[in-house]
Amino acid sequence: MNLLVLGAGQLARMMALAAKPLNIEIRAYDVGSQQVVDPLNTAVPYGSLSDGIAFADAITAEFEHISHDVLALCEQSGKLYPSSQSIKTGGDRRLEKELLTLSNAANATHAIIESAEDYRSALDTLALPIILKSALAGYDGKGQWRLKSAKRANEVWQEIDEFFAGADSKQKQGVIAEQMVPFDREVSLVGVRDKTGNTKVYPLAENHHTNGVLSVSTALAGEHVLQAQAAEIFDRVANALNYVGVLAIEFFQVGEKLLVNEIAPRVHNSGHWTQQGADTCQFENHVRAVCGLPIGSTALIRPTAMINILGEDTLPNALFAIPGVSLHWYGKEKRAGRKMGHINVSAATSAELQKTLELVAETLPDNETFADIKLYINKQ
Amino acid sequence: MNLLVLGAGQLARMMALAAKPLNIEIRAYDVGSQQVVDPLNTAVPYGSLSDGIAFADAITAEFEHISHDVLALCEQSGKLYPSSQSIKTGGDRRLEKELLTLSNAANATHAIIESAEDYRSALDTLALPIILKSALAGYDGKGQWRLKSAKRANEVWQEIDEFFAGADSKQKQGVIAEQMVPFDREVSLVGVRDKTGNTKVYPLAENHHTNGVLSVSTALAGEHVLQAQAAEIFDRVANALNYVGVLAIEFFQVGEKLLVNEIAPRVHNSGHWTQQGADTCQFENHVRAVCGLPIGSTALIRPTAMINILGEDTLPNALFAIPGVSLHWYGKEKRAGRKMGHINVSAATSAELQKTLELVAETLPDNETFADIKLYINKQ
Repeated sequence: MNLLVLGAGQLARMMALAAKPLNIEIRAYDVGSQQVVDPLNTAVPYGSLSDGIAFADAITAEFEHISHDVLALCEQSGKLYPSSQSIKTGGDRRLEKELLTLSNAANATHAIIESAEDYRSALDTLALPIILKSALAGYDGKGQWRLKSAKRANEVWQEIDEFFAGADSKQKQGVIAEQMVPFDREVSLVGVRDKTGNTKVYPLAENHHTNGVLSVSTALAGEHVLQAQAAEIFDRVANALNYVGVLAIEFFQVGEKLLVNEIAPRVHNSGHWTQQGADTCQFENHVRAVCGLPIGSTALIRPTAMINILGEDTLPNALFAIPGVSLHWYGKEKRAGRKMGHINVSAATSAELQKTLELVAETLPDNETFADIKLYINKQ
Repeated sequence: MNLLVLGAGQLARMMALAAKPLNIEIRAYDVGSQQVVDPLNTAVPYGSLSDGIAFADAITAEFEHISHDVLALCEQSGKLYPSSQSIKTGGDRRLEKELLTLSNAANATHAIIESAEDYRSALDTLALPIILKSALAGYDGKGQWRLKSAKRANEVWQEIDEFFAGADSKQKQGVIAEQMVPFDREVSLVGVRDKTGNTKVYPLAENHHTNGVLSVSTALAGEHVLQAQAAEIFDRVANALNYVGVLAIEFFQVGEKLLVNEIAPRVHNSGHWTQQGADTCQFENHVRAVCGLPIGSTALIRPTAMINILGEDTLPNALFAIPGVSLHWYGKEKRAGRKMGHINVSAATSAELQKTLELVAETLPDNETFADIKLYINKQ
């Protein structure tokens, strides 16, 4: 079976690694060069998008910011999973908020802003502090503003207005203003839904961010109440979209209540731990679902955490010698802050996992993001 | 880092899948076409053997029957691990027997036969029944004879003599005559030795053969006495060869004693279970060792067995729905009896593993080899 992935980054690469043993061949559409390539060896070309669509039995996406004409072309072929509507919803916070309302999924009090008037009205209805996020594109901390005091309201509007003016998007840009949620922690749920509507969810992961970018995800065992709450929300959201594939939902945890922060219609960084920690990893389950195969068990097989490697292209070899440590490099050119790879850390028990994480922390270099990661690990 | 593998079959493919996340690129030398190819996509050519040697930081092999001039060329580059001597020893039962003697590793009483006179003398010294195996090439049951009664001695010699006459090898063919070992079961040990001489071994696996071909391997937990005995033999053999990489040793178990049946200087079919059942799989550990990286933990993470898929290129999708089941296809053309892929089956406990294996057995088709595998599973 042949699968075309829209996007040729690390997520397509890891899908291809998971798909090979299933005899499923993956080619990837690089939205930059507009060429289809081998995601495991991006120097090998496979023609244009239409060649890729002709090659494929199924088409999926590794990210949500794909131009709508590409999505339309893929959807026309009848092979696109999840639907273009699902992908667009992940790429536009306005559609995402509509979906959450439709799915009765609790989320932050918010307003949509597309004009100065919307902005003024949002300031009237929302309590400070407010976080403002661009509706289109913008993730990992880009395209965001925080308004803590009414004094800065005009200044922030100037910035947003300039941002609107500078947007080169074919779609109308907007901003979502959300009342800041005083959350206890951030958790996420990765799950999968097949073509017949069956769903399975992985254990929740606790997420730690460094400078607005995910840096550590730890699979949570034994959080039965939260897990059930998250799974119920997952089902409502995935069913509302008639979703096919892996879908991730990020939550703010406030006491025992989960508020949806955002959804990602794809395999997700907070699910990379599943490569070593779950019965079937998120990449294989996504491929299975979009190719019409039964989805696999999402059970935790051992306590596991993931550490992102940001902006580094080498790490001490000593890491290899620590039992339970698996390195996953993405084969990318080094750039400051760039996601270059991740480290999965597993152990037989949670206590052993913590010890192994501390050992890994000692071994990691002392750059800025690792320093923050070490603090987080050693605080547990 | 770049690694050239001599041989472009499923073992090179699985090494490449394990090496990608380490940012180690593998190219494979197809001994048939004498071309270097991408082992994950053998249609992509990468030139001649000398191109492959120039590309590589290290060179290794996926099988032991490689022509000696190719091995010499690779060894000259100073990049070949394990050494050509190790590879040749795995490819010639005469050298293998010398190694076992040198390593003080118990094995069957045997004689080397290269002439009619050797044959007569072997019949004088060995007790019937005798198994005769070609010294060069020949595995999975090919090039073997059994002599149970002295009446058939001449007939068997005729066959061997014809076999010698038909040998197109550049090396002198021979036969090893072994007194048949009345063994209780066949087990094997896969282990790894790094460039500085550190070794780690996986748990022993119990092996079941169908028509002379490995069909099921089950990782053995708790066999401490046998495991220690096997590990000691592994160290002696691997040290005698100054071995680098993964090495497999097949044993006959007779009571509590292990007799070496044969060694394989490479990743081994009876170690495929490590992909789901061990902390670091055999493919990653081989790649690490030959690339000079620290070797990883070989600990069992959960009870796991492997079932070979012989001569089939599709299996019921229902297999995907069984928790703990992982499919590994090799992307090969279907041919009767050919190793087309394998199924790894894991569970939290040995009792659950047995239940899952029975479920898998029910799901598998009723061809001849699966029928035998089902009998074996249901007898446990």
